[in-house]
Amino acid sequence: MKKVFDALLVNNEFKAEAFIKEMDGKKPLFVCTIATTETAKIPEISAAGKHPEFTDYTPPADAELLLLGKCKCINGVPVTPDGIPTPALITMSALRLADIPVLVASGGLKVKPQIPFLDLGGKPGRDIQSGNAVDNVEEVIERATLAGEQLAKTADYLVIGESIPGGTTTALGVLSAMGVNAEGKVSSSMPDNPHGLKNETARAGLAASGASFGSLAKNPVKAISCVGDPMMPAFAGLVVGAAAQVPVLMAGGTQMTAVLAVVNALNPDVLCNVAIGTTRWVANDLSSDIKGIVAQISDVPVLAADLDFAQSRFSGLQAYEKGIVKEGVGAGGVAIAAMAKLGGAVTKDMLLREIERNYALLMGTK
Amino acid sequence: MKKVFDALLVNNEFKAEAFIKEMDGKKPLFVCTIATTETAKIPEISAAGKHPEFTDYTPPADAELLLLGKCKCINGVPVTPDGIPTPALITMSALRLADIPVLVASGGLKVKPQIPFLDLGGKPGRDIQSGNAVDNVEEVIERATLAGEQLAKTADYLVIGESIPGGTTTALGVLSAMGVNAEGKVSSSMPDNPHGLKNETARAGLAASGASFGSLAKNPVKAISCVGDPMMPAFAGLVVGAAAQVPVLMAGGTQMTAVLAVVNALNPDVLCNVAIGTTRWVANDLSSDIKGIVAQISDVPVLAADLDFAQSRFSGLQAYEKGIVKEGVGAGGVAIAAMAKLGGAVTKDMLLREIERNYALLMGTK
Repeated sequence: MKKVFDALLVNNEFKAEAFIKEMDGKKPLFVCTIATTETAKIPEISAAGKHPEFTDYTPPADAELLLLGKCKCINGVPVTPDGIPTPALITMSALRLADIPVLVASGGLKVKPQIPFLDLGGKPGRDIQSGNAVDNVEEVIERATLAGEQLAKTADYLVIGESIPGGTTTALGVLSAMGVNAEGKVSSSMPDNPHGLKNETARAGLAASGASFGSLAKNPVKAISCVGDPMMPAFAGLVVGAAAQVPVLMAGGTQMTAVLAVVNALNPDVLCNVAIGTTRWVANDLSSDIKGIVAQISDVPVLAADLDFAQSRFSGLQAYEKGIVKEGVGAGGVAIAAMAKLGGAVTKDMLLREIERNYALLMGTK
Repeated sequence: MKKVFDALLVNNEFKAEAFIKEMDGKKPLFVCTIATTETAKIPEISAAGKHPEFTDYTPPADAELLLLGKCKCINGVPVTPDGIPTPALITMSALRLADIPVLVASGGLKVKPQIPFLDLGGKPGRDIQSGNAVDNVEEVIERATLAGEQLAKTADYLVIGESIPGGTTTALGVLSAMGVNAEGKVSSSMPDNPHGLKNETARAGLAASGASFGSLAKNPVKAISCVGDPMMPAFAGLVVGAAAQVPVLMAGGTQMTAVLAVVNALNPDVLCNVAIGTTRWVANDLSSDIKGIVAQISDVPVLAADLDFAQSRFSGLQAYEKGIVKEGVGAGGVAIAAMAKLGGAVTKDMLLREIERNYALLMGTK
């Protein structure tokens, strides 16, 4: 696969290359949208927390890590049930190496971070099996659009990421409601992707809401309200507001395709200014298919940070090569932005060394 | 008085000229800190609302006006008891003329604005006569400092303003606690400055808190906690975080001197990067003395937008020439930033025409 800097051109190679070249030497702003959904507490659905109940703390703790270099609302950092640390470790390392500013935006949280964050008027999400998952979707989209318009004036381009445990299941819900075939195609923070459980959950949500596959293709607000999560209206509004003015790199894995479908339904014109930035672990994942989902929506460029932890001296980082975690908190997109900001001077090796340094500091290992 | 563009050099002329020349052609970000205090509800103390109870709505309505061009939480726009419109009208006009981005930050509010805003963890303030006016001051300063550090990376310089009714009385409280003689020197949104009432209120607060004139000179956190308002920790933290990296124009009237005293006590080193930007109505006000207060703290430059509404076709704007309103919502500083951003292409006459256009739209007058 063709590379520019240490970023792979995963989809729409021509436009992907143009997009990253437009980023070269430019100053980005990273906006991390955080939110929580009860969907994450369905047993075995998410590894973004040591136990299901801990998933309420993962997004605020990730946000604190980005701004403070440590968490305040929990001890240590968010980990999977196996003790593998949050991808916010990658994001934080990349932000610091390239001196990229970060703002945190809340789509709706059970636990608030102990740092400054943009309040967009949202509330925490319910389990999508209720068929009535998110309140206030239209209002949050409007407010996030306003925020995106203002923030676009402060940077050459925006990188927008997310932290929401359970987010690939809610992505499957929204994609299904909007007529995008994503069963078996969404990614997972676990090496064994629980597709059966996700399909069952999303289908139960659709049924409970009275919707069916594709019945909300033209109603993204209702699709999110029924079977989505509160990160989505925040993220989609930011994209709509910002991409009318500057390029926007949507930083994440298959969750980004649900946001893409929403933006495509709200304002397809802005997609000429949008790319997805993810990690090699998502791009090469055999248990999911980001390209296969994107192809059904809009042929936007997809880039992937060519991160490789195989040679790391920490087993907690080597685990990423086994398909644990894979992506999140904008890790892939921010890594690409760090590379591009300094014209390639930040390499994947340099990133790994910085990630290992922070890993040692935060995990108390040498 | 010497002028650069249509801005008067009011204090420390040499540094003031250097400061505005550093702004020439550069891209600012405007941050509007909003908060409420029960102090504003003392009868006859503030004109920043049609009635005292309305002062809870003034800051969120001002913020909405800046982002939306209209208010959502109230009908119309905030007005004085005489129907004179909020200075946010000036700010909004200047922001739009020069395409300056704006973010709203909350220090603590009774009524939340229906727009995106930075939550800094603060709460609405109590009447300073309690001697226990503001909660959580240290934490809000810390969070605002973090926000200032990040926002400084997104702009060539920051303009920071405020909207808090009752703010000159709380300013007097904090200045007195910190040993700055400001009785008879703080400004007012009314033509007849109620100095007696303000002095009495600030003295009652000091007495209730067990402090006395100057006893908290080295404890700005306690000074705000006892007799300040929740705008102050938000504003001061933003200055401390941002001015370590980029110039900061503190946009406001005599309230800025209380923030200046706080910043001077927290981190005097950053003041080499700080100026105050106000209006001609404050600079020339015979019933207050911004220079006399600044001189007691730190000889920072003071600039004043040379706005003149004498020839306006609207009596609601001519009223500014009689000493009504005078300043607020960063009006003076943002007007100066609008002039400087385009190298003087935005003049005071152009600003007045844009303000009149928005006045006609919002006040329903022709």
